Amino acid sequence: MPDPLDGIAEIDFDRGARRGYPEAVLCASKTAEQVGLIAQRHKAWHAESGAQWPTLFTRCSPEHLRAIIEVLPDAAVDQTARLAAWPAQPPAPTGERVLVVCAGTSDLPVAREALLTSRYLGRETDLVVDVGVAGLHRILNRRDQLDSAGVVIVCAGMEGALASVVAGLVSCPVVAVPTSVGYGASFDGLAALLSMMNACAPGVGVVNIDNGYGAGHLAAQIAAPRRTAQ
Amino acid sequence: MPDPLDGIAEIDFDRGARRGYPEAVLCASKTAEQVGLIAQRHKAWHAESGAQWPTLFTRCSPEHLRAIIEVLPDAAVDQTARLAAWPAQPPAPTGERVLVVCAGTSDLPVAREALLTSRYLGRETDLVVDVGVAGLHRILNRRDQLDSAGVVIVCAGMEGALASVVAGLVSCPVVAVPTSVGYGASFDGLAALLSMMNACAPGVGVVNIDNGYGAGHLAAQIAAPRRTAQ
Amino acid sequence: MPDPLDGIAEIDFDRGARRGYPEAVLCASKTAEQVGLIAQRHKAWHAESGAQWPTLFTRCSPEHLRAIIEVLPDAAVDQTARLAAWPAQPPAPTGERVLVVCAGTSDLPVAREALLTSRYLGRETDLVVDVGVAGLHRILNRRDQLDSAGVVIVCAGMEGALASVVAGLVSCPVVAVPTSVGYGASFDGLAALLSMMNACAPGVGVVNIDNGYGAGHLAAQIAAPRRTAQ
Amino acid sequence: MPDPLDGIAEIDFDRGARRGYPEAVLCASKTAEQVGLIAQRHKAWHAESGAQWPTLFTRCSPEHLRAIIEVLPDAAVDQTARLAAWPAQPPAPTGERVLVVCAGTSDLPVAREALLTSRYLGRETDLVVDVGVAGLHRILNRRDQLDSAGVVIVCAGMEGALASVVAGLVSCPVVAVPTSVGYGASFDGLAALLSMMNACAPGVGVVNIDNGYGAGHLAAQIAAPRRTAQ
Amino acid sequence: MPDPLDGIAEIDFDRGARRGYPEAVLCASKTAEQVGLIAQRHKAWHAESGAQWPTLFTRCSPEHLRAIIEVLPDAAVDQTARLAAWPAQPPAPTGERVLVVCAGTSDLPVAREALLTSRYLGRETDLVVDVGVAGLHRILNRRDQLDSAGVVIVCAGMEGALASVVAGLVSCPVVAVPTSVGYGASFDGLAALLSMMNACAPGVGVVNIDNGYGAGHLAAQIAAPRRTAQ
Amino acid sequence: MPDPLDGIAEIDFDRGARRGYPEAVLCASKTAEQVGLIAQRHKAWHAESGAQWPTLFTRCSPEHLRAIIEVLPDAAVDQTARLAAWPAQPPAPTGERVLVVCAGTSDLPVAREALLTSRYLGRETDLVVDVGVAGLHRILNRRDQLDSAGVVIVCAGMEGALASVVAGLVSCPVVAVPTSVGYGASFDGLAALLSMMNACAPGVGVVNIDNGYGAGHLAAQIAAPRRTAQ
Amino acid sequence: MPDPLDGIAEIDFDRGARRGYPEAVLCASKTAEQVGLIAQRHKAWHAESGAQWPTLFTRCSPEHLRAIIEVLPDAAVDQTARLAAWPAQPPAPTGERVLVVCAGTSDLPVAREALLTSRYLGRETDLVVDVGVAGLHRILNRRDQLDSAGVVIVCAGMEGALASVVAGLVSCPVVAVPTSVGYGASFDGLAALLSMMNACAPGVGVVNIDNGYGAGHLAAQIAAPRRTAQ
Amino acid sequence: MPDPLDGIAEIDFDRGARRGYPEAVLCASKTAEQVGLIAQRHKAWHAESGAQWPTLFTRCSPEHLRAIIEVLPDAAVDQTARLAAWPAQPPAPTGERVLVVCAGTSDLPVAREALLTSRYLGRETDLVVDVGVAGLHRILNRRDQLDSAGVVIVCAGMEGALASVVAGLVSCPVVAVPTSVGYGASFDGLAALLSMMNACAPGVGVVNIDNGYGAGHLAAQIAAPRRTAQ
Repeated sequence: MPDPLDGIAEIDFDRGARRGYPEAVLCASKTAEQVGLIAQRHKAWHAESGAQWPTLFTRCSPEHLRAIIEVLPDAAVDQTARLAAWPAQPPAPTGERVLVVCAGTSDLPVAREALLTSRYLGRETDLVVDVGVAGLHRILNRRDQLDSAGVVIVCAGMEGALASVVAGLVSCPVVAVPTSVGYGASFDGLAALLSMMNACAPGVGVVNIDNGYGAGHLAAQIAAPRRTAQ
Repeated sequence: MPDPLDGIAEIDFDRGARRGYPEAVLCASKTAEQVGLIAQRHKAWHAESGAQWPTLFTRCSPEHLRAIIEVLPDAAVDQTARLAAWPAQPPAPTGERVLVVCAGTSDLPVAREALLTSRYLGRETDLVVDVGVAGLHRILNRRDQLDSAGVVIVCAGMEGALASVVAGLVSCPVVAVPTSVGYGASFDGLAALLSMMNACAPGVGVVNIDNGYGAGHLAAQIAAPRRTAQ
Repeated sequence: MPDPLDGIAEIDFDRGARRGYPEAVLCASKTAEQVGLIAQRHKAWHAESGAQWPTLFTRCSPEHLRAIIEVLPDAAVDQTARLAAWPAQPPAPTGERVLVVCAGTSDLPVAREALLTSRYLGRETDLVVDVGVAGLHRILNRRDQLDSAGVVIVCAGMEGALASVVAGLVSCPVVAVPTSVGYGASFDGLAALLSMMNACAPGVGVVNIDNGYGAGHLAAQIAAPRRTAQ
Repeated sequence: MPDPLDGIAEIDFDRGARRGYPEAVLCASKTAEQVGLIAQRHKAWHAESGAQWPTLFTRCSPEHLRAIIEVLPDAAVDQTARLAAWPAQPPAPTGERVLVVCAGTSDLPVAREALLTSRYLGRETDLVVDVGVAGLHRILNRRDQLDSAGVVIVCAGMEGALASVVAGLVSCPVVAVPTSVGYGASFDGLAALLSMMNACAPGVGVVNIDNGYGAGHLAAQIAAPRRTAQ
Repeated sequence: MPDPLDGIAEIDFDRGARRGYPEAVLCASKTAEQVGLIAQRHKAWHAESGAQWPTLFTRCSPEHLRAIIEVLPDAAVDQTARLAAWPAQPPAPTGERVLVVCAGTSDLPVAREALLTSRYLGRETDLVVDVGVAGLHRILNRRDQLDSAGVVIVCAGMEGALASVVAGLVSCPVVAVPTSVGYGASFDGLAALLSMMNACAPGVGVVNIDNGYGAGHLAAQIAAPRRTAQ
Repeated sequence: MPDPLDGIAEIDFDRGARRGYPEAVLCASKTAEQVGLIAQRHKAWHAESGAQWPTLFTRCSPEHLRAIIEVLPDAAVDQTARLAAWPAQPPAPTGERVLVVCAGTSDLPVAREALLTSRYLGRETDLVVDVGVAGLHRILNRRDQLDSAGVVIVCAGMEGALASVVAGLVSCPVVAVPTSVGYGASFDGLAALLSMMNACAPGVGVVNIDNGYGAGHLAAQIAAPRRTAQ
Repeated sequence: MPDPLDGIAEIDFDRGARRGYPEAVLCASKTAEQVGLIAQRHKAWHAESGAQWPTLFTRCSPEHLRAIIEVLPDAAVDQTARLAAWPAQPPAPTGERVLVVCAGTSDLPVAREALLTSRYLGRETDLVVDVGVAGLHRILNRRDQLDSAGVVIVCAGMEGALASVVAGLVSCPVVAVPTSVGYGASFDGLAALLSMMNACAPGVGVVNIDNGYGAGHLAAQIAAPRRTAQ
Repeated sequence: MPDPLDGIAEIDFDRGARRGYPEAVLCASKTAEQVGLIAQRHKAWHAESGAQWPTLFTRCSPEHLRAIIEVLPDAAVDQTARLAAWPAQPPAPTGERVLVVCAGTSDLPVAREALLTSRYLGRETDLVVDVGVAGLHRILNRRDQLDSAGVVIVCAGMEGALASVVAGLVSCPVVAVPTSVGYGASFDGLAALLSMMNACAPGVGVVNIDNGYGAGHLAAQIAAPRRTAQ
């Protein structure tokens, strides 16, 4: 029987073994039908290979989520993050703690996508919300959480100043995610992106606008347990 | 005798009376010869009219400064700010205090242009240098100066985050000047400009990149004595 | 009982005391449910603290307005400005007058947002509509209103020339708001923004595209009563 | 003998007959040697053909001018406009008057290039300098000149608002030339270009930044004598 | 009774007398209700003043058209051009002929808006469709129409090359209208706009993207009867 | 009877004879009615002229497809590629093989449009899907297919790195199609476009974003049989 | 002895064998010293390997050329193209003819770089200069040369319309090179680049601005002899 | 005696204690005199405090280097990296290895700045040069070096594809530095920046264009010894 994914997708199941982190499924520009087929393939592959890593489905529309649940009814779903994970249970955390900080309530979808990605890649995670620099005391009151993190993810739209401010306060690396929150001359996240690229405090690595998945992945790599004794 | 400025410039001497603030001479795209002729005209007009307001010459190259000094040997000159003023004596200060804050040493030319403009338009001025957000304690240590100002001018390049941070700390208006300090994705001040336009703290009015003169002028207007009893 | 806003928002109730102006609620990228929860929190806080300042809800969709009215049935609502205020009664005006001028009928939503913000922050306000520079006599006929203002807010889309023209006519500061009115090479307000940044008349502070709230806030600060005798 | 221009240029001598206006020589990106060769070719062609139209050399550097003068010692040269014309005598003017208006002294090179182009293509020309909108009375005082023109060329940098203002005052067409005068967010004339493209007053045709030649050519065509009785 | 347009619009009825061309109503960013009110005002003003010029309503959505027809049932409507005119009868044509040329079928809405604007401002008009440069013979076959025009309006999207080609063929002025036809790197008309600004053939004045009205207005001015004997 | 396409379209039926490749119908910005009329015209012309080349209809919405099928019920339709062809049978392939390679599942619509265009212009075609550079082994495993192609079309969004990588592996020309797949700073395909323009491996020609038709056309020309013996 | 190129360059000598075309040396951002070392390495490698392909040095400043000539005194140098080749003798031409067409004299450096690259990669080449679309007869007079080419390279700055026009005239592929010739809104070649990306005639592949080398390389590949009998 | 740095700089000597990494001196937009004064201050502070961390001076012009050497004659200087360090001895390396990979010879200044920054912040470093994706075997041959690194810094200009390719090969984090190497549509590094932001392989954090210092700093933080046992 011909494979219904032929000429459609060539899944990189090997990536977990090769890079230590499995491939995720970016649903945004796929049809619900394609996502359903890919979910079936992952289900079969987990059965065959006994793989332990959960598969993440990101940027899921409600239609995508329905197609996933039909195939994998016990998947975990986070509506805010537009994310599904299967199997639902994240691995036991290792390495250092990933702290996700976001400037405003509107940055939550990106922040939660970052947090869940890090968690499903095996890190302990923590979330701090709505600590934009317009009220500086809010982030200054979180010094303890900042100091105990192995990496901080900063999600901010508008002028994205929170990334510079946080990087000036901590010794660990900062992963900065510009978000498309804002209007007018925020140009859908471009202002925050440029701001973060030009952060006057060193120690900031920037990912794409609204790329919570990429931020969570990079943070999980940074906070991973050392492979070698030091 | 034909006027040598005919077909070259039509000076708006009337602006001081009309707007309360005199016209300045932007030298940047004029020849040294044109600037010299304009300086002579101002000299003559002060003599005729008894005008008191000093004339400012901004964005002066060394050639421009030489042409000005030749005509007005007692002009005040600030090399860092690339600015000349004649007569050299600023008016006695009235209204509220203008505080100029800049993020780094490299922002000094713009900061001093802003400061001198406000001073020559009749305000008391103060300067705080090198208080970028990478070391947040530096600006937090200046709370007294911030609180006593009637308006704060913030000059910053790179990501321009200082404008948001200052606006979140004060109750008075903030005039934000993006500077072209930076490189790469700062795009000659564009990153700072967009950042300041999107400041998450309200109370920020933005002027053009490196426009110290415009910032100083706007701040002088904001801090002007009230025309009417309140 | 856990707070339903935990992990969602951390309201800066303290801002009124700290900066003299309370935090507003930008609804645009929040869900109606989140806005409803925030409205309840403000209601409770006013009851507890006896705070007098009205809370503003800006960029409200019809869904946002419904959620607000359900919690605060006596809120004031302006459909054009997409704004709600509670308590509905603005403070008695102090300081100088804020004059809002807009170039065309289509700029009204932004102009009214600016006007209401200034009014709810305690200023007397006035509105002049549809005085674009294509018919220059329209703004020239308003010299008296311009002269009696403590600050002028200019809202204009397309080429935004009205900001330069008004700044050349008045001695008070001008707050310029580029609007997204226009098409094609207006690039959703970018043309007006750049135009206002480059105004040949000094005395113009620019805020973000369509940022009526920011303009009204800045103008209210500029026109505030002096804290000290002069 | 091989033609030294072979593989370098193919001059469109026929354009005068075909379009009614001869081809000009844009020197800016040619070497001085190439310009000298082209000048010789024009000299020969005038001798052969008895052509009457002067040839214009535009955007001439001092080196270009020297190369031209060596070949055509009686050429007319305008240093400000960076333009040479040969033969030096413009044609007797026909059609309507071309009025060139510029916002500031720094726009003069572009304004004079426009004016001389129109004059050498056979129009009567007039020049009004330094009438930017920051002092609106300056342009309002020129209503008579504006009313008697068949076309107005407006040269302005910075925010370019003068084009809208002039178009709102006259019934004839306006040719708008954005200039690169300005700094920062003028982006070398882009702000003025966008402003002029979005002029709220209809009747404005825009040419390239600093394109005085193109403006003068278009204006000469607009103001040309009617080919047919009306 | 208070005027329902108070605080909404200030119609420049005087513009016909002042500039020779009446103000049009740009409906795009107005509500249908506002457009209906403005239509009533125009109806009343025509009755009072006996004005002869038709009023144009541009960029009309179906809702706008319904509101106009309700007030002015005998208005002329062109669905393709999204334009209404009242009174429906254009003036008897004077001056020279306006030729509208468009590159493709998809440029028709803009081309017809341009054509009707010129016609309602009193010019004879003609239309040539689908003559893009990919098949150069199509425009070369129209040399007679090109030669008999007093001005040519070129509407083109994508790379907008037709403007240069036409300008190289005619002696009259060309008004170029970039259209938003295209995709990808056409950036909604920006590619065509830049192309037209850089036309290697002089004699091209550019208006805003999709600005058929502006092109028709400018062309009508260019082709107007001479006010003075020549 | 008047031609219903008069004033709407002027079809270039001659192009097949002139260029060797017939004109296609870009439906995207035409109405379904216009597309139906054009389909009828093509049907009639095939009957009259006995032309053999199939006509392609590209960028078809479902409405466009319905209008085409009503006129040409035996047309071939590819939903993914949004393309119809009539007559349905492609010509017998000549020349070299066209290989279409795409980086991800989401690039399929563009890839299939390219493939079908080449096939209907007379080339043998082959497709390789989902071989993005994140798993480099996927493309390296396809060396045989790459080596046997006469031209490779690479479709990729996001950072578009696949074009450089493929060009470094093959000796034949590469046609690169940036796609709008991605989000945030991909700016709807701009990032991939710039990436492909700057490919460090020579041998890459770039077409417009999402322009599968253009890529397929260019590839068919490159892989065409030689007209002359070598 | 340590290799002086260690840590500086790793030359891909294998590329000729792998891709059929050797690696060239882009000098632009290398020091003259580095270029000299690389030239020595190529000299040694030719001696060792008996390689026949000439090495091209592109974007050479006068300093680069001096360093090359010192090592390879018999290299061929083209000052206009800023290119050196060693050994100086190009291979005997095979495949089809490459025709290079440029719009103006100022495009010559890019055009000659393209031509010489194709010639040194083994193609017969021809050059047509100064045939911009402002005088359309110039390119129409070259139909024979266009028809006999296997590929046409079009070099054009400003609005780049020549690419569309040529592609509409020929059946072979067109390689389009935008040049940075122009000023103002040409944005250093961006206008021509966008224009060429949006060419309404299919069959155009675009390379980077001023990338004569890349165009010549791609054209040489397109015009290469077929590897297989057809 | 007044401090000559008053009103010029406020050095954040405390940063080493606060963040674990000392402040560096960005010389690019400072005068040589200012840099000399700052060097003296650092010298004095090392003497007073017994601080061990070397101070880095980045983006040094020859003038800056002279001013530094005059004050600190035993400083280490790297001409290629435009960097000085004092004291010259880097700390004994701890943590994991930082591998710097660059695509071409022209990226060396940025690559060496990154490498030296990591080394002076206490990491073991390694360098791989000229392994661009046009010859993919070059990077594939370095798998061992890639696998043994704790973090990889990728420096690449042009299309920046190397970042994606490397991230797809390794399990450790990648710090990507776009460089301004390239021309035309590379837009001084913008193409590489966008490419790296959109890398299809997760695990990439991007810093500013040419920001070798920032990359080296971030990498040093990522590769730092764990503060806590795991």
